[in-house]
Amino acid sequence: MVCEIIAVGTEILLGDIVNTNAQYLSQELSQMGIDVYYQDVVGDNEQRLSQMIRTALDRSDIVILTGGLGPTEDDITKETAAKVLGVELKFDQASYDRMREYFQNRPMSENNKKQAYVPVGSVVLRNDHGTAPGCILDTGEKIVMVLPGPPFEMKPMFERYGKPYLKKKTNLVIKSKFLKVFGVGESNAAQMLKDLIEKQTNPTIAPYAKMTEALFRITAKAGTEEEADALIAPCEQEIRARLGDSVYGVDDDTIESVTVGMLLKRNLKVAVAESCTAGLTASKIASVAGASAVLDESYVTYANAAKEKLLGVSGETLEKFGAVSEETAREMAEGVQRVSGADIGLSITGIAGPDGGSPQKPVGLVWIGIAYRGTTEAFCFHFSADRNRNRELAACNALNIIRKTLIKGEKKNG
Amino acid sequence: MVCEIIAVGTEILLGDIVNTNAQYLSQELSQMGIDVYYQDVVGDNEQRLSQMIRTALDRSDIVILTGGLGPTEDDITKETAAKVLGVELKFDQASYDRMREYFQNRPMSENNKKQAYVPVGSVVLRNDHGTAPGCILDTGEKIVMVLPGPPFEMKPMFERYGKPYLKKKTNLVIKSKFLKVFGVGESNAAQMLKDLIEKQTNPTIAPYAKMTEALFRITAKAGTEEEADALIAPCEQEIRARLGDSVYGVDDDTIESVTVGMLLKRNLKVAVAESCTAGLTASKIASVAGASAVLDESYVTYANAAKEKLLGVSGETLEKFGAVSEETAREMAEGVQRVSGADIGLSITGIAGPDGGSPQKPVGLVWIGIAYRGTTEAFCFHFSADRNRNRELAACNALNIIRKTLIKGEKKNG
Repeated sequence: MVCEIIAVGTEILLGDIVNTNAQYLSQELSQMGIDVYYQDVVGDNEQRLSQMIRTALDRSDIVILTGGLGPTEDDITKETAAKVLGVELKFDQASYDRMREYFQNRPMSENNKKQAYVPVGSVVLRNDHGTAPGCILDTGEKIVMVLPGPPFEMKPMFERYGKPYLKKKTNLVIKSKFLKVFGVGESNAAQMLKDLIEKQTNPTIAPYAKMTEALFRITAKAGTEEEADALIAPCEQEIRARLGDSVYGVDDDTIESVTVGMLLKRNLKVAVAESCTAGLTASKIASVAGASAVLDESYVTYANAAKEKLLGVSGETLEKFGAVSEETAREMAEGVQRVSGADIGLSITGIAGPDGGSPQKPVGLVWIGIAYRGTTEAFCFHFSADRNRNRELAACNALNIIRKTLIKGEKKNG
Repeated sequence: MVCEIIAVGTEILLGDIVNTNAQYLSQELSQMGIDVYYQDVVGDNEQRLSQMIRTALDRSDIVILTGGLGPTEDDITKETAAKVLGVELKFDQASYDRMREYFQNRPMSENNKKQAYVPVGSVVLRNDHGTAPGCILDTGEKIVMVLPGPPFEMKPMFERYGKPYLKKKTNLVIKSKFLKVFGVGESNAAQMLKDLIEKQTNPTIAPYAKMTEALFRITAKAGTEEEADALIAPCEQEIRARLGDSVYGVDDDTIESVTVGMLLKRNLKVAVAESCTAGLTASKIASVAGASAVLDESYVTYANAAKEKLLGVSGETLEKFGAVSEETAREMAEGVQRVSGADIGLSITGIAGPDGGSPQKPVGLVWIGIAYRGTTEAFCFHFSADRNRNRELAACNALNIIRKTLIKGEKKNG
């Protein structure tokens, strides 16, 4: 079954509000195994709206309309849908009573009475959080569902009355799992999974590009949740086998939540010395609830003098190799480990831009150092985004280096 | 002129992401006086996409497509748009060179080469933040603009290359100026401007709610830029007269850019001691280009021991009043001023949540201290958002406190 979602409202076309209703309904429908091929937005204009409903009925089995059920003359969704289907409106006493109840002692405008009219032969959907009832027109062949626009009215109405109605029409479960990948670009990762992405039909694998990482969604269709899980598992295993440690998590995991989780599990503390990121990395660690068990202190050493004074980086190193160098990154990592007493010392020093670059050391050059268990390593990156995306990339890569260092250490010992 | 916005991407139809691109483009177009009658979303399916482009070309003058420019075989937007318009694709060396530059030393997958093909006769739009170029196909009668899907690539491309192209096609000047307001809630500010918002027609005044601040857009329609400016000026003056110092900036100003700008102008340095924000405030300062002239060093003192060791907060104060208290905030601010030698010492200590609250000190309680010119002040906030929004609110308010302190100091002396 294919469903189309039409949001009605000039405020969306002006960009005053985002169409979150479409996202909510799409998620709900996809989990019920109902495909959404189109989402549309159209203004409160009878000619354009009726044309849109006709087009949608041509190409989809179910049409869900949101918005345009208000008391004003601008609000024409219910009237237009009924006209397209050749149905009259009739006064619905139950909806009127519900409205009176909603207004209680407050005055109710005569306009509101308009909201109590519903298409003849429709299933009326009670509005538990407002005045306008929704409705379902089921011709046997096509279903048109009309819902209010405000999300706090629409969502409970769909959840309580709309969804059960549609569920009776399907018996399929669709389940998705996201695999999160760090340190391999989207196109490289997609190349490594090319045959899977192309050949797989159930589950399907789809790549997504994010700013700092790649993301693959595995989606299975089945009769039950368990069957869907059983289809996803071997596919996930195959992707993990190919991408290895780059797969850092699933679903709602973030590079910071996974890294902090690993530190918590191993009872390790980290301290960060940051130059170009200037606190961003420490802040990302602290963004995870429970971070106080892994982070006691950290340092922003933006000036060279601060690198010397707070971390004991030698003036000679700074002079000879510069603040953005392997040598300085190493001394910063060792210095912050020493002064903090933390298990792991992490350092970031780079040229975020837009100024400060040179042919030898261009904007986007970042050195990240890590001192852990008597060993210090340093990694070089060349980012090519703007100042703050370079800083973001540096902070996320620094967290990924903690993760990779812990994994490597355990492989060696394991 | 009527424009239609088509977002291409199965991830939107599955409800995995919200179509914020449509909102952004709708806002931009409406400010240029271009009407948007339809927004559509369609999946990466050639038949449905080409049908959608044909329908859009029938009813709109300009069609903007976003998404589906990636390196994988799923990505077919450019290919499909070219086919509908009967145009071949050709290899674009400049786009390929830009891609090589973007990848620098990192390996570039063979797949990426596909992204360097553009429709013959199209205007190529350089991607300054990614690999996929956009393009404009202008038939003289209709315009098709193809933009990448990720907002951080799409927005700058539209702003820099797409918008100027469309601007040449309209001859009405619609000009907007944003006034940015910090420290007065949106509804309070809107209440103070109620009569202006309701009565004004040219310019109009529209309030926008943001997470940490309020925003008012003044929009004037005129024949020339100068006429538009002349309409905006008295309106801006009236708003500033009513909201006073709370208006911290205009347009692209941010609380961090304005605060850093004030420090730069006064040749002052700041050092931050952060507990719950853990580097977020320092990072915001460093997000502004040129921040190295105002920031040498800062401290994340998450643990009580770190507050004592690094800032000299007394153990007695911590024990008697707790880490989240006026007394600790004051000692942190004075401590960081002293150890850093900066002109201004700023401190943030609070309970971000979700745990750690008590009836006396609930989640969301934050103390911010500032030490400047021999005076120390502390300010108390009660935020009621989640952990990371509480941290964000604390960091932005800390920056606003620097701004207000500098203004107050000058009023006293002036």
